[in-house]
Amino acid sequence: MAVEAMRTAAPLTQGVYLRTFEAKFREYISAEHAFAVSNATAGLELAAQLCQIDLGDEIIIPAHTFTSSAYPFAKAGARIVWADIDPTTRVVSAESIARCISRNTRALVVPHLYGFGADMPGIMSLAFKHGLIVIEDVAQALGVKIDHQMAGTFGDIGVYSFHSHKNITTLGEGGMVTVRDSKWAEIIPMLRHNGHCAYLYERQDYWIPAMGNVDFPVLNGKKLWPMNCCLGEVECAVGVKLLERVNKMNTQKRDRAIMVIDALANYPELIFHREVSERHNYHLLVAQVQDGLRDAFMRRMANHYGIQCVVQYCPLNRYPFYQKLGFEVAELPHTDTFFDSMVSFPFHHMLTDNELDEIVAASRETLDFLRR
Amino acid sequence: MAVEAMRTAAPLTQGVYLRTFEAKFREYISAEHAFAVSNATAGLELAAQLCQIDLGDEIIIPAHTFTSSAYPFAKAGARIVWADIDPTTRVVSAESIARCISRNTRALVVPHLYGFGADMPGIMSLAFKHGLIVIEDVAQALGVKIDHQMAGTFGDIGVYSFHSHKNITTLGEGGMVTVRDSKWAEIIPMLRHNGHCAYLYERQDYWIPAMGNVDFPVLNGKKLWPMNCCLGEVECAVGVKLLERVNKMNTQKRDRAIMVIDALANYPELIFHREVSERHNYHLLVAQVQDGLRDAFMRRMANHYGIQCVVQYCPLNRYPFYQKLGFEVAELPHTDTFFDSMVSFPFHHMLTDNELDEIVAASRETLDFLRR
Repeated sequence: MAVEAMRTAAPLTQGVYLRTFEAKFREYISAEHAFAVSNATAGLELAAQLCQIDLGDEIIIPAHTFTSSAYPFAKAGARIVWADIDPTTRVVSAESIARCISRNTRALVVPHLYGFGADMPGIMSLAFKHGLIVIEDVAQALGVKIDHQMAGTFGDIGVYSFHSHKNITTLGEGGMVTVRDSKWAEIIPMLRHNGHCAYLYERQDYWIPAMGNVDFPVLNGKKLWPMNCCLGEVECAVGVKLLERVNKMNTQKRDRAIMVIDALANYPELIFHREVSERHNYHLLVAQVQDGLRDAFMRRMANHYGIQCVVQYCPLNRYPFYQKLGFEVAELPHTDTFFDSMVSFPFHHMLTDNELDEIVAASRETLDFLRR
Repeated sequence: MAVEAMRTAAPLTQGVYLRTFEAKFREYISAEHAFAVSNATAGLELAAQLCQIDLGDEIIIPAHTFTSSAYPFAKAGARIVWADIDPTTRVVSAESIARCISRNTRALVVPHLYGFGADMPGIMSLAFKHGLIVIEDVAQALGVKIDHQMAGTFGDIGVYSFHSHKNITTLGEGGMVTVRDSKWAEIIPMLRHNGHCAYLYERQDYWIPAMGNVDFPVLNGKKLWPMNCCLGEVECAVGVKLLERVNKMNTQKRDRAIMVIDALANYPELIFHREVSERHNYHLLVAQVQDGLRDAFMRRMANHYGIQCVVQYCPLNRYPFYQKLGFEVAELPHTDTFFDSMVSFPFHHMLTDNELDEIVAASRETLDFLRR
C-alpha cells in the first residue's frame, strides 16, 4: 500500500489517501470528524488554539505525562495547574482533577498514559458541571475502550499519535485529531493548512483574485493562528493499512503484559496495574518497585542481564522548562511516589516470546538477589 | 531506498537516515549546519523564533510570495512591511528592499520565487550595513546558484521545501533548514523537538531524574518556544536519494522552459523571464500577458485546449488574513502589475515532450486568435 501510494498518489499530499485515512479512522473510532496531522504535538497545538485561551485562564494537566501534553497550552498563554494521578491506575481521575478546579479553569487535558483509559464518564460529568473543555491525549491509547466507547470520543477533542514508538506508526511521525463540534471541524482544515480556504463570494473567473483565499480561522468571533501540519499521502496510506491491525496488536500486547505480570505475581516488590480488558492496551509495561529497590533493580537488570529498563515521564513541574514558566509548585504525592520508584520494562511490539521470557527470568533473579 | 528504510529503520524517526540526509544536504549545499523538518512552513516558524522579534520590530517580505513566507513572522509578533518585486525578475532586489528599511527593521525574507535566485550579494551588503537578519526562502530554488554559490547559503538561515509540488519531494511533505551561526545550530534540535535536551550536569544514574531533560532553547539570554517538526526516517531516506537527482532535474526543467520561451519568442504579448544559467531552475514557468489579454488567454487555453493555466501568489496584502492584521497598505506597483497580468503554465516535471509541444501550440493559436 505504501509503495503503491508512492507510485500513484497525485498529489502526494492532501489527496485521496488522506481522505481515506480520515474516513477509516472516523469509522474505527466512531467519531464525527477526524483530521490527520503531521504529529500529535501539532494536534495538541491545534487543540490549544481551539481552546481560545485568555489571559488568566488555567488548564489542568497531570504532571506525569509527556511534555507535549502540556507545553502547547502554555505557549498559547494558559497557566498550567498540575493534577495528581491515581496511585493504582497512574492516570488522572475525576477526584484528582476536581481538586484543581478554580473559577479560572478553562480546560483540562486527560492523557490515557501507558495505554489505560482514564475514567472519562466521571471526568466528563465533572467537566460538564463546570463548563470545561476536555482534551483527551490518546497518543498511547488508540483502540482502548472505556465502557464500550473508544478513548478519545468522550472529550471535545481527541489527539492520537502514530509516532514511531506507538502501537501503530505512519512511517515514524503522524497524528490524528477528532472533534465532536462541527463548528470546530469546519475550521480545522484552515488551522492545519496555513489558513487556506475557499472564497466566500461568487467569482466571474475562478483564478481572480487568485486560486485560493487565505484568512484567519474564526471561532466565536475571534481569530485563531493557523499552522502547517499536513500529513503526506504515503503516511496516510500506511495508516489505513495499520488501522486494520490495531485491535489485534492491542490484544497481543495486553495478553503478553498480563503474562509478564502474572509470572511475577510472587514478587510483591513489583506493583503492576493489572487490567484484563479492552480498557488497557499496555502500550507500555510499567511497575512501581517497592522498598527503595528501584535503582538497584535497574542497575542489576542492565549490568547482569543486558536488559535496559527506563524511568519515564518525570513530573513536568520538575523540568527547568516548566519551572521557568512559573509552574514549579505542585502538591502531587502520588505522582512523586510513583515516579520516584517506577520502572518501565522494554515492551515494544517486536519483542519475541523468548525475549519476554528472559525479561521475566532476569526480573525474578534480580529480585531474588536483592532480597538477600 | 524508501522501502529499505521502512524495513530497517529503527527507530523510524530521528535516526540514521535523518543524519545521513542532513549530512548529504550540507555537502550538496555547502552549508555548515542543516536540519530536516516536517515542512518548510515549520522551518519558517522556527526561523521566526530565531529572529527573537520584539514589540515594534518590522520584517521586510515581498507581498508576491506564498503565505508561509510571511505569516510565521506575524505570528511571532512582527510588523510586516511589504517589499515590491523587480519587474524583470519577479523577485525582490536590494533596491526594493532598501526602500522598506526603517530603524525598526529587524529582518528580511527573500523568497527565490519561481526558482530564480535573487541578488543575494547586493541584498547581503545592504543587510550587513543595517544589521539585519536575512532569511532565504529557498522552497522553490533548491540547487540554484548565484555567482557560483548555492541559494540559501548567503543569509543567516535558508529554508527549503520538499513539498509535493517542489522539484524534489520527501513523500509529499518535508523541509530543511540551514544556518551559518553555530549558536543557532546548537539550539535548533531543541526547537525542533519539544525542547528535549541532555542534562548539563553529571548524574550518578542516567535514569535519574529522567531519561532526558526538557528546557527552553535560549538565545542571547532569552527563551524561545519549541515545537515538534521532526521529519520521519523514510522521508529522509527518500530525500537522500532525490538529492542525487536535483541538478539533473533543474537542468532538464530549465532546458524545457527555455525551449517554450524561445518557441513563443514571436509573441511579444507574453513576457517571460529568460535566464539560461544555473541561477534559474524554472520551478515554475510564468509570463506576463500584455494588452489586458490575460483573462481571455486563460479562458481560451482552458476551454479550447483543456490546458489549465493558473494565477499564483496574490499579493499577500490583498488577503483578508493580512488585512485583519493591519498589513493592508502597501505601494507595490510592480507586484500589482505583474500579478494582475500573470499566467503560470502547467509545468511539472512529469509533463511529456508532447504535452509541452501542445502547450506551445495552444498558446500560439490562442494568441493568434486574440490578435484578430
